[in-house]
Amino acid sequence: MTATGDRLSTLARGLSAPKGFVDASLTAPAVKAIRLLGGIPAPEALPVEAIARASAQLWQDPDAAIASLQYSPAHGFAALRDWIANREGVDPGRIVVTNGGMHGLSLSVLTVVERGATVAVDDPVFPGFLWALEVSTTGILPVPVEADGFDVEHLARRLAAGERIAAAYTVPDFHNPAQVSLSAAKRQALIELAERHGFYVIVDNPYRELRFAGRDQGVAVFNDSDRAIHVNTFTKTLGPGWRVGWLVLPAHLVDPVIRLRNRLDVHTSSVTQGIVERLVTGDNQWFDRMVGDATALYRERAGVLVDALHEHLPGAFEIQAPEGGLFLWPRLTDDGLDPAALFRRAAANGVVYQQGEFFAADPRQRSSARHLRFAYSDRTPQELREAVRRLAQAF
Amino acid sequence: MTATGDRLSTLARGLSAPKGFVDASLTAPAVKAIRLLGGIPAPEALPVEAIARASAQLWQDPDAAIASLQYSPAHGFAALRDWIANREGVDPGRIVVTNGGMHGLSLSVLTVVERGATVAVDDPVFPGFLWALEVSTTGILPVPVEADGFDVEHLARRLAAGERIAAAYTVPDFHNPAQVSLSAAKRQALIELAERHGFYVIVDNPYRELRFAGRDQGVAVFNDSDRAIHVNTFTKTLGPGWRVGWLVLPAHLVDPVIRLRNRLDVHTSSVTQGIVERLVTGDNQWFDRMVGDATALYRERAGVLVDALHEHLPGAFEIQAPEGGLFLWPRLTDDGLDPAALFRRAAANGVVYQQGEFFAADPRQRSSARHLRFAYSDRTPQELREAVRRLAQAF
Repeated sequence: MTATGDRLSTLARGLSAPKGFVDASLTAPAVKAIRLLGGIPAPEALPVEAIARASAQLWQDPDAAIASLQYSPAHGFAALRDWIANREGVDPGRIVVTNGGMHGLSLSVLTVVERGATVAVDDPVFPGFLWALEVSTTGILPVPVEADGFDVEHLARRLAAGERIAAAYTVPDFHNPAQVSLSAAKRQALIELAERHGFYVIVDNPYRELRFAGRDQGVAVFNDSDRAIHVNTFTKTLGPGWRVGWLVLPAHLVDPVIRLRNRLDVHTSSVTQGIVERLVTGDNQWFDRMVGDATALYRERAGVLVDALHEHLPGAFEIQAPEGGLFLWPRLTDDGLDPAALFRRAAANGVVYQQGEFFAADPRQRSSARHLRFAYSDRTPQELREAVRRLAQAF
Repeated sequence: MTATGDRLSTLARGLSAPKGFVDASLTAPAVKAIRLLGGIPAPEALPVEAIARASAQLWQDPDAAIASLQYSPAHGFAALRDWIANREGVDPGRIVVTNGGMHGLSLSVLTVVERGATVAVDDPVFPGFLWALEVSTTGILPVPVEADGFDVEHLARRLAAGERIAAAYTVPDFHNPAQVSLSAAKRQALIELAERHGFYVIVDNPYRELRFAGRDQGVAVFNDSDRAIHVNTFTKTLGPGWRVGWLVLPAHLVDPVIRLRNRLDVHTSSVTQGIVERLVTGDNQWFDRMVGDATALYRERAGVLVDALHEHLPGAFEIQAPEGGLFLWPRLTDDGLDPAALFRRAAANGVVYQQGEFFAADPRQRSSARHLRFAYSDRTPQELREAVRRLAQAF
């Protein structure tokens, strides 16, 4: 054996090591720390019994069982695509089933983002998107996320000043981490800007189904534009473990995305598609009922967390009550407080969360560092109250 | 809406349209044509009952069910990696679970093949590898596949003459399409050449388990070298639909591959890993028994096909009896026969197969075009005999 590690591709060498966001997730500072870290479904909200039934039916149906064990079309299972297309209000030919949301982001980036190009991104931003983007470019144009989402006017001004972008990335519903939703007016404005300037909008929408307050701002404006790639997934509803999601693509991007998949992974697992297809198409109300139950759980948990923060740490945070999704993004009101020191004390005291600084797209902006990201979805009300008590002690 | 299709990345624009290999697969020339097209498992060989049991156990075990519905490590499920590592004779830390063999090839290419670099490939070659390669390069150095596999001496001469390659690609066991296996001596010689010249060997080994005659030439030489990436999959044993495979990586490539996966698809489905892990680890003899039953089926089918060709088309082909795998690669003995015209007549007569020309890595070499690739695995003996009768009429 010769010892070597020097013949990696430029691409492989260029991928950054995990930092910040991931490091914090890996920290296990106190035994039995309460983890408010990941935006993952509550175990109680995952429909294990229905999955067991759908799965048993699949393996007992000889034709379906064999179809789930053999190769299947790169676009995805037909009845599953039909069901998704019906919910999205588009032609099934525009749906491509993916291996989850991150895979959808990655396929989008590889298809429309030129190497070294610039992409406008939410600021604060979901760090996972910057990782996906790194395969093509590290050139980003951070765009502030306001109370009604991505600042379209800011981007318009930058474009008017001569900036050129290949794509704009935003999470329109229950933003990660900033919890807000993009207003209907801004959705329209963003798409018009994209059509005028000829860039793509990568619309990352994993939390869309999880609304428990406020008004849906609509996705038809995305699905009706040939400048929007609408990325979605069953991760936050049926569970991350499936690795099943979908893209709503402009018709002209379907073939390029399929050609890419022919090279990368052939198709999404026929086994997972076979089970998920049965789950969602077997009873047409089932998915909405299941999501309704999960959302009721998240509404309760969000409320418990907000109430506990007001009770135990009155005035310490500026807090917006979430309208859906899995995150609370409170802002520290005391500008003299060091958030890194607070995190260390909290961790030592048995509660961990994501520090806001990890979500800054522009490392020069200091506003994200004044925030904490709490994921409340997979903690019980009792754990959430205890987490806040421990956090209060850290203050 | 503006009509646009002109803002694709250079990468997306550069991916070729499907041709040849895929077109032929899509041809359905005669109603009820007998298809000898794809190297896929026989439906009868797929262990549906065992899968149903493992799956039912998984969903009835509350902890395992939740683990299969949540995120899981990018490297793969621990017990599954242990089982694979034990069979491969390597440390589990060197195993990365993939979404099947093609995904393993794609990860290998993206990790070690520089953009625009040259890669030595089998000639004839599995066309899927050239597609996977296209994401990084179209630069290939075709290396003839002989009766004992990849012509290592040919490559050595080209390297001595100044040629530089990033990697060499070969299918060592039951070659697709050429049916042969790489001799133990050549395996050793290829690895020594790679270590001397500092390139990687991408060892694509999906048919390895399916031996029914002859002697195993061993894989320890690959698994012991830090210049070999050993790509494998459950596709030809448990079925292509799982999209579960694995890489045996040199230790220094594990982190680069994981960083890439962090960007591309996060991890292989926890659901499929959960079921496959139960299948293979529940009873330590089960996998070998299952593969033994499947291989007995393929031995019988290969024999039926060879016998029928000798009986109905005596002297028409030069035939080697397969020692395993899913393919027969007979050579037409009549140099005056037009293989494309033969294919059209055969298709019109109700039998389709892959034409040899689609597997030529070097389009100037004409020897592949003198071959036919018959996949016998998923056709019954009766269908195989009828296919040969139809082919004989086409002659």
